[in-house]
Amino acid sequence: MSVTLARVAAVIESRKLENGGDPDKSYVAKLFAKGDDAILKKIGEEATETVMAAKDARVSGDASKVLYECADLWFHSMVLLARFDLTPQQVLDELARREGLSGLDEKAARKE
Amino acid sequence: MSVTLARVAAVIESRKLENGGDPDKSYVAKLFAKGDDAILKKIGEEATETVMAAKDARVSGDASKVLYECADLWFHSMVLLARFDLTPQQVLDELARREGLSGLDEKAARKE
Amino acid sequence: MSVTLARVAAVIESRKLENGGDPDKSYVAKLFAKGDDAILKKIGEEATETVMAAKDARVSGDASKVLYECADLWFHSMVLLARFDLTPQQVLDELARREGLSGLDEKAARKE
Amino acid sequence: MSVTLARVAAVIESRKLENGGDPDKSYVAKLFAKGDDAILKKIGEEATETVMAAKDARVSGDASKVLYECADLWFHSMVLLARFDLTPQQVLDELARREGLSGLDEKAARKE
Repeated sequence: MSVTLARVAAVIESRKLENGGDPDKSYVAKLFAKGDDAILKKIGEEATETVMAAKDARVSGDASKVLYECADLWFHSMVLLARFDLTPQQVLDELARREGLSGLDEKAARKE
Repeated sequence: MSVTLARVAAVIESRKLENGGDPDKSYVAKLFAKGDDAILKKIGEEATETVMAAKDARVSGDASKVLYECADLWFHSMVLLARFDLTPQQVLDELARREGLSGLDEKAARKE
Repeated sequence: MSVTLARVAAVIESRKLENGGDPDKSYVAKLFAKGDDAILKKIGEEATETVMAAKDARVSGDASKVLYECADLWFHSMVLLARFDLTPQQVLDELARREGLSGLDEKAARKE
Repeated sequence: MSVTLARVAAVIESRKLENGGDPDKSYVAKLFAKGDDAILKKIGEEATETVMAAKDARVSGDASKVLYECADLWFHSMVLLARFDLTPQQVLDELARREGLSGLDEKAARKE
């Protein structure tokens, strides 16, 4: 897996309350303390902000906001995954599995 | 970067119309042909489906749907990134940069 | 209540399968046949489209798309309300109750 | 139009900065001061919360949260409408127009 994804996942895991995460010191620990709904709201919010950033980027010509919002969306997805004891590696495995299942995609992958 | 993310990004890139992607044969090429709004709608849809999957998982006790919807969300995020000539590597770099900026997170990362 | 909201709510109610709604002939009956998730996806979709329409309106100077998307959002909200045997009148009552509870808002209302 | 919608729209209108709305005293004036994005984020948030409330209602058997979240969604829609100098009456007119355009719906409306 990506070293970065593994590191970010490890940090998120360490923020769980049962792993000593402190809601007063850590944003992620605070999300865990608030529970599912707080995390799910963030998924909705970050998706909305990604949409707005893409619209803005077409006007400004600067796509960097799309990148930042996408990073926010992935980060909060990883908090949700951790909440359900899932890992980004499992998401990557699922993406790899789908790629393998698609004849078109497999052909494209072989070209690499 | 993750080999899977690199492969998926390469497949998505190959589906751009200017790279020979065929909207009649490829779902991703069809999204590219439809344009920004079609891709952004999918971001909103997949985020909503992720929220629903998490709620369902609390009832069923089966988190696999959260995984599938998260994979859908990441996949369509990668289509959006490609649309703006951005890469998942840049998202990972941004996540790594943020981790480095946070004292708390850096400490956690050092423990690894 | 608004005559229009009452009429739209009556049409939606008549589309419920138990009231003879036919999924082959009616879009709303089809949503009811598909179930909660199909309706909830539409709430997420229409919200996303409302956000996109507002962004577009700032570029085009034409706010009519905001109006259409807002109508879509309210319409699908009413399908959801009907699904839970709730009415738009109850939403209006809740809005009226909140207005009454707010000192600031009540003062503004008295000015009318 | 519904008296409630007209009153709520009037209160929202009075909260515009050019009409004397004070961001320090009024939540709606604060949204107007923050601008489009703050209002659009709320649309995304309230849609997500409506979806969560519907899922919760299936578990709890209590649909009242659906009602509250729908009221929130409509309220923030009305703030967005006001932001674009549109009115809930125009949304109702659009809903009535669509009803009139649909043969199926018109038939249902005539039954009332």
